Amino acid sequence: MKNILTYGTYDLFHIGHVKLFKRLKAMGDNLIVGVSTDHFNKLKDKHSIFSYEERAGIVKACRYVDLVIPENNWEQKKNDIEKYNITTFAMGDDWQGRFDHLKAQCEVIYLPRTENISSTDVKQNILSISQLELDSLKIKIDESIRIIESLQDSLK
Amino acid sequence: MKNILTYGTYDLFHIGHVKLFKRLKAMGDNLIVGVSTDHFNKLKDKHSIFSYEERAGIVKACRYVDLVIPENNWEQKKNDIEKYNITTFAMGDDWQGRFDHLKAQCEVIYLPRTENISSTDVKQNILSISQLELDSLKIKIDESIRIIESLQDSLK
Repeated sequence: MKNILTYGTYDLFHIGHVKLFKRLKAMGDNLIVGVSTDHFNKLKDKHSIFSYEERAGIVKACRYVDLVIPENNWEQKKNDIEKYNITTFAMGDDWQGRFDHLKAQCEVIYLPRTENISSTDVKQNILSISQLELDSLKIKIDESIRIIESLQDSLK
Repeated sequence: MKNILTYGTYDLFHIGHVKLFKRLKAMGDNLIVGVSTDHFNKLKDKHSIFSYEERAGIVKACRYVDLVIPENNWEQKKNDIEKYNITTFAMGDDWQGRFDHLKAQCEVIYLPRTENISSTDVKQNILSISQLELDSLKIKIDESIRIIESLQDSLK
């Protein structure tokens, strides 16, 4: 029995998450996903749009995921690997080398991002819509400044 | 065999979508989900953050969904009900009464929203972050206007 373990926040669930889970599930028999709790995110100075319950609920509903566990702190990985009899611990290659100390317990792999997409990209995409409103306000401010300057000249 | 059919855009996949699919799946044997294509959204003047391929991929990965089909136009429901031998056609109660003409073909139900959440809410939540920047710009504009008015008074 091959048990795979990974961790993440999974805010704004996107196709990159789905493809990652599909790939990890194909590597073994069971895929266990640790979802960072809101408390843990706060410790990391991260703010998620969705709550832990919502994020965990969405990950649980993914057909490639067998079990969702809460990720409460940095130190629990060692215990989780033992508790769930993990054979492969997988993280994105933005974490390259950071978990090599777990190699004493199981296989540790770092996966390249398959998708040119992230929750941050999604947020940026949505924000770009409001950027238009911001830009139009900035133009109005510039106009105001020009009028002020010309008025000041008249006062001299 | 009870086959359930529903349609939607499913942009920014959230826990409300998951709960809806779970509920629909529990009502029958197979859940078929029509996902609106980008072309169809354009016709409806709707803009989605994710492409059809991404939205359909996420819905397909949901364990409660048995089949995903593209929704290309308003008229295809009649054909889909026949083609997939649908017993129950389900839509949100914001569509109340709009599909009663399909009752000749199958059961038509309108479900109340179980979650106080929508893709629009999610976008608003993200946008509220940039609202802070907008608000600070608006304060600057008000200040500019005050200065202009006082300068104009001086010029009288």
